[in-house]
Amino acid sequence: MTYGDSEPTISAAKRALDIEYAIRDVVVPAMELEKQGHEIIKLNIGDPLEYEGLPTPEHMNEAYRQALTEQRNGYSPSYGIPELRSAIAEEETSKGWVCMEDDVYVCTGVTEALQILFAASLEAGEKVLAPGPHYPPYMTYPPLFGAKTVEYRLDPDDNWNPDFDDIASKMDDSVKLLVIINPNNPTGGIASKEMLEKMIELTEQWPQCTIVADEIYDALNFDGDHHSCAAVASRMSSRVPIITLNGVSKNFFAPGWRIGYLAIYDPSGRFVQVRDGIERLLRARLCASTPAQYGYLAGLRGDRSWLQGYRDKVLQRRDYCLERIAEIDGIESATPGGAFYLFPRLTHAAVEDDKRFVLDLLHQEKVLLVHGSGFSPTLGKGFVRIVYLANLEILKEAFDRIERFLRNL
Amino acid sequence: MTYGDSEPTISAAKRALDIEYAIRDVVVPAMELEKQGHEIIKLNIGDPLEYEGLPTPEHMNEAYRQALTEQRNGYSPSYGIPELRSAIAEEETSKGWVCMEDDVYVCTGVTEALQILFAASLEAGEKVLAPGPHYPPYMTYPPLFGAKTVEYRLDPDDNWNPDFDDIASKMDDSVKLLVIINPNNPTGGIASKEMLEKMIELTEQWPQCTIVADEIYDALNFDGDHHSCAAVASRMSSRVPIITLNGVSKNFFAPGWRIGYLAIYDPSGRFVQVRDGIERLLRARLCASTPAQYGYLAGLRGDRSWLQGYRDKVLQRRDYCLERIAEIDGIESATPGGAFYLFPRLTHAAVEDDKRFVLDLLHQEKVLLVHGSGFSPTLGKGFVRIVYLANLEILKEAFDRIERFLRNL
Repeated sequence: MTYGDSEPTISAAKRALDIEYAIRDVVVPAMELEKQGHEIIKLNIGDPLEYEGLPTPEHMNEAYRQALTEQRNGYSPSYGIPELRSAIAEEETSKGWVCMEDDVYVCTGVTEALQILFAASLEAGEKVLAPGPHYPPYMTYPPLFGAKTVEYRLDPDDNWNPDFDDIASKMDDSVKLLVIINPNNPTGGIASKEMLEKMIELTEQWPQCTIVADEIYDALNFDGDHHSCAAVASRMSSRVPIITLNGVSKNFFAPGWRIGYLAIYDPSGRFVQVRDGIERLLRARLCASTPAQYGYLAGLRGDRSWLQGYRDKVLQRRDYCLERIAEIDGIESATPGGAFYLFPRLTHAAVEDDKRFVLDLLHQEKVLLVHGSGFSPTLGKGFVRIVYLANLEILKEAFDRIERFLRNL
Repeated sequence: MTYGDSEPTISAAKRALDIEYAIRDVVVPAMELEKQGHEIIKLNIGDPLEYEGLPTPEHMNEAYRQALTEQRNGYSPSYGIPELRSAIAEEETSKGWVCMEDDVYVCTGVTEALQILFAASLEAGEKVLAPGPHYPPYMTYPPLFGAKTVEYRLDPDDNWNPDFDDIASKMDDSVKLLVIINPNNPTGGIASKEMLEKMIELTEQWPQCTIVADEIYDALNFDGDHHSCAAVASRMSSRVPIITLNGVSKNFFAPGWRIGYLAIYDPSGRFVQVRDGIERLLRARLCASTPAQYGYLAGLRGDRSWLQGYRDKVLQRRDYCLERIAEIDGIESATPGGAFYLFPRLTHAAVEDDKRFVLDLLHQEKVLLVHGSGFSPTLGKGFVRIVYLANLEILKEAFDRIERFLRNL
């Protein structure tokens, strides 16, 4: 059965068609090459499970399986199972602020936490101020609600630290959320205690503004100097609400389980109305996966000694990549203090466009990176993101190819 | 540390504060009573796992556990793992229409499928036409995007069949989605083949309108006369796009796993732009739970003989409730053909308000139902919803109490 050209097209909502997901622009050609039989070295996916030697800890899998065996397969409370909320509250409290069980809301990953936070906070025309470059959903979701994201500059020449003059110049009454990603994706940058204090002080001047502290990589801070933003605010006796985001995906090496949370620091009750909105949105959507919550609970309650070995492995891989980059002409990198990303600058004279570079490298050498402009059209331009979770053998081969590619440019 | 009354309140978005979830108005008092030590017979939760004898089939749990053991804990493709999409496509095809793997999108429950479908379809001011009474998210989500839901009347005196005159009178160019829930929640009503044909014919006249066929309870059609709406449209060679919604929650007795799907029937390509919007929204949010998808896959691929036993058990419980209702003065019910809900009318002269009735019954007899007006302020008024998944012993006790309560009114 075929239909004529006169068939009407049903119109989609503009908000959906406006979504760009730049990372996909390089993934689709990579998939094409794979279909043709090429083997691609993929250093593009922020998923430890894609690579060797970083499995989800077995005691977490075991607790998850146990929940299935015990038929904990029904709906759970919309805000999360009480045991998990309580364990998360203890975890946050251990970082230096008083977090109660009722301050914790379990979500289907930080992605859902962001969707709900934005839906509860942002009226049309209001703004999110987020670091540039940044993890794409910070740019993608606010426009779904008629709001928009403005980037503040991270300085590539100062270890990707925030440019406070730029932040100050962009703050106004319409900025409802100021985002800190610490450690940062895609730069791996770390926010120091002083930086967080400065950010909180700056926000104090804007009583409608809340800080979003995305700390999903905080166990992967290699120097062990992570500072919880809510803890810093608490020590300052600040009234600025801080929404901490975290979950099982990165720190516990289980991204496919889709369990994250938001935890609210709000000593003065300034955030009470938005909290009510968050709760309404959470109740309207049932719950996060029930059995998966028990797996995360085991991670929080169980032994953490495994983590040091994982962190050492990730650090060794980072250091190998940094050594190679230092030896290769045409690419240079800051030393990221956390997460599992490098965001090196392409300095080769023949490289004009980071996306072109990524596509050419993919086609010629079958190595997949992500172009920096996918993380910020302006502030990521001229950079690439490298996920350094693969083992040293694969990383060696990838950098041999990158080296050859740059040499032949 | 305390703060003064002069503390500013951060404003929430109106869309979030406008969310009402009427069911909660009776759950909160029930929780209070439980805290005081009362035991409540809860016939309010549409979750088979809350009740005895209806566990998730063990071969599904086993496949899910196996996925965890094999470390399938990373991200999966945004549209779902290919094996599951393919199995769902075969499942839908077996119902009588040609569904391809690419027509299937796996979501975090039908709830996420609805959120994404609404976000992709609805501009501000556009409408969803949904049955009244209905499952609350159909009313809750469209306003998040500035759209609204208009109810069409289901006729309580005609086995909750749709009132086609009412539908016809409410159709116009701004109706983007026409919803059919079959079997229906909360009424248990079944849409016959003729009814679906009539609905499709009516929609043919409105080229911007798509039918949403929520068939999440279709395996719980007691007479085995379920008709897939897409299959009916296909046999009619209709060009009206049909979005079929289904998942693991009800038909496979695993609501806490949070896996559902939408499948697109669109023979003439009319839906191509909205499909693009759906794909963009799906890609922006990573994926549904990876290991849970393997559990659902086992359900679809595995033996289904267990289902007859489950259905018989549910049917036996329904019949017991209908018998009791027939014997009790002041309450009467149609005979629902599917799902696991009764939606009886309160005919007792002393009952003025269904919510008052539910709250009084709760406090006096410790039985929790949901007031019909929670499913539609106008069309559900004077009714209550009873989930009949509890075992016969509990149902007997519940109806003894309901009988006593009505006798003493």
